[in-house]
Amino acid sequence: MLDYSIGVDLGGTNLRAAAIDRNGLLIDKVSGNTHLSAGREAIVSDIASSIEKLRGQCGRETLTGIGVAVPGFIRIEEGVIANSSNLVCLEGFPIRDELEGRIGAPVLIENDANAAALGEKWKGAGHNVDDLVLLTLGTGVGGGIISEGRILHGYLGMAGELGHITVVTNGNPCGCGNCGCLEKHASATAVLGMARMLGLPVETAKDVFDLAQQGNERAKAIFDSVGEALGVAIAMLVNSFNFPLYLISGGMVAAWDAFSPRMFTELRRRSFAFRTTNTRLEKAILLSEAGLYGAAYLPYLDPVALKAGVAQK
Amino acid sequence: MLDYSIGVDLGGTNLRAAAIDRNGLLIDKVSGNTHLSAGREAIVSDIASSIEKLRGQCGRETLTGIGVAVPGFIRIEEGVIANSSNLVCLEGFPIRDELEGRIGAPVLIENDANAAALGEKWKGAGHNVDDLVLLTLGTGVGGGIISEGRILHGYLGMAGELGHITVVTNGNPCGCGNCGCLEKHASATAVLGMARMLGLPVETAKDVFDLAQQGNERAKAIFDSVGEALGVAIAMLVNSFNFPLYLISGGMVAAWDAFSPRMFTELRRRSFAFRTTNTRLEKAILLSEAGLYGAAYLPYLDPVALKAGVAQK
Repeated sequence: MLDYSIGVDLGGTNLRAAAIDRNGLLIDKVSGNTHLSAGREAIVSDIASSIEKLRGQCGRETLTGIGVAVPGFIRIEEGVIANSSNLVCLEGFPIRDELEGRIGAPVLIENDANAAALGEKWKGAGHNVDDLVLLTLGTGVGGGIISEGRILHGYLGMAGELGHITVVTNGNPCGCGNCGCLEKHASATAVLGMARMLGLPVETAKDVFDLAQQGNERAKAIFDSVGEALGVAIAMLVNSFNFPLYLISGGMVAAWDAFSPRMFTELRRRSFAFRTTNTRLEKAILLSEAGLYGAAYLPYLDPVALKAGVAQK
Repeated sequence: MLDYSIGVDLGGTNLRAAAIDRNGLLIDKVSGNTHLSAGREAIVSDIASSIEKLRGQCGRETLTGIGVAVPGFIRIEEGVIANSSNLVCLEGFPIRDELEGRIGAPVLIENDANAAALGEKWKGAGHNVDDLVLLTLGTGVGGGIISEGRILHGYLGMAGELGHITVVTNGNPCGCGNCGCLEKHASATAVLGMARMLGLPVETAKDVFDLAQQGNERAKAIFDSVGEALGVAIAMLVNSFNFPLYLISGGMVAAWDAFSPRMFTELRRRSFAFRTTNTRLEKAILLSEAGLYGAAYLPYLDPVALKAGVAQK
C-alpha cells in the first residue's frame, strides 16, 4: 500500500484534516469547527484528535508525516506561530513540537496561503508549472509564492505578504499602518465597505455582486475598482517574478466575472511582460481544498525538514 | 596559478572588461567606448578584442569562461538580446554564439542589472547573504534579484523588471504603456523632468541635488518625492520576498542623503516586515564595478550552462 500523509487546515472558523496518498489521492477527510472560545488546549486537542481519527482508519505504519496550515506569520524553523490575528491564543505557541509530542509522528507547519499555493502546484491549476503566485481574496488578502516547486519563505518566513502591497497611493488605511494596501481594496471586506460608503442596501459582498449582476452601476463601479487594484498588484508581481502562472483563490473568485475585465485591462497596460508573452492569470481550481492538499504535500516535499523536526525532539 | 574568468560590461556608452580570479581578485581591466554608430560588427569586434587582450596577458589555459552583461531583455537559454533600447542594433542577435565562435571559449550573457546584483552578492555589500534585491537608479531604473545565491530569471528571463512597477496610481506616463512606473519617479531622468516642471535652472540631476543641498525647497521636494516612490517600491519588495538585504546602486546613490530620509519613513510605514525585523536597506558598494564582477562570476556560478553552451556549438 502506498504511504500517505495527513494535511490539517486550521482556520479561524473551521478545522479540517485529510489523509492523502503520495499520488495525491484523497483517502479520507474529517471536518469540524475551530473552538476559539475554548482556548488553546481545546484547539490543540481537536487537531490531535482529527489526526488520530484519520491515522486509525488509514494505518499507523504507512504515515509519512503531518502538515498543518495555519493563518499568520510562522517561524518555520522553530515551528511556532509568531503572529496570527485569527488565532491570537496560539501566538508564540510551539505548536509543531506540542503536536509531535502528542502524536508521536513528524509535523511540519506552514502559513495557510503558502500551503494553498503549494496545493495548487501539486494537484491544482499549477500542476504543470514549477513557479506560480497565488492570491487568496477572502476576508483579507493572502499570498503564496512557489519558486522552483518550493514555497518561497524569505528571510524569516514572511515572504508572500501580498495583501499589504500598496496599490493605491493614498488609499484606504490598513491595520498594518500603511494605506492603500491590496487587502483594503480587493478583499470581500473592502467590497462591503465600499458598498456601504455608497449607501447600497447590502449585508455581504455576495449581495454587492448580485446587485452588479443586476446592472447596478454603483455595484459595478466597486468591482471595477477591485479589478484595478488587482491589475496593479499582479502587474507588479509579473514584472518582479516573470513566473508563468498567477492564480486567484478565495471567496471573491465567485465575483470573477465582475472584476476580471478591468483586472486584465490594467494588467495588460501595466506589464510589458504580461502582454507580450503567454503568461497565465486564472482562477485556482482546488479552492477551499487547496490548503489541505498543500499541507499534506509538505512531508513529501521536505523529508529533510521532517527528519530534522523529529531529531530535535 | 588560480583560474580566472573575464567579465564584460557592455553599456550604451562604455565597454569595459576585467579579468578576475576565482577568489574575486581583479587581475587586469580594459575600458573604452561603445561605438554605437559604427554598428553591430564594430561592437562585437571591440568586445572580442577586449577579451583577447586580457587573455593574452593572463594566459589561455587558465581561462574558465567569459560573462557578458548587456542592458535589455535577454533570452538566456538562446544567448540572444531580445530587446534593448540602448543597443537596438544588437536586438535579436545571437551574441553568445557569435562571441564563442570568434574567441573559442565559453560565453554566458546576462542582463546588466542582474549581473550587478550578482556582483554585489559575490564581492560587494551582499557577500554575507544569499538573498538580495538590487535597484539601479540611473537614466532609468533596473532591478536584479538574487535568490539562494542565484539570479532569479523567471519564465523567460524577464524577472526583476523593477523599474516598471507602479508606485503612483495615476503617475507620470512611461514608454512601456503604463503610468506611474518607478522609473518615471525615481530615476535621474525623472528628477530632471520634475525640476524642469518646477522651473528650476538646471541641466542635470546633479544640479538638482546641489540645489537641494543649498536648501532650495523645490529641489528638496523633488527628492522627497523620489524617496516616497522608492519607499513604496521597496515596501512591496520586502512584503513579497522578505529577503534580508535591499541595495541601491547607480548614479542616483550620490543623492542618498537627499532622498533616503523620506524613503525610510515610507518603507517603515508600508512594511510590517521591515519595521519589525532587522532587514537592511543600504547603498551598494561596488557601484559601477558591480556589473563587471557579476559578469565575471557567471562562469564560476554556472559551469553546467557553460558546458551546455559549448556543447551546443
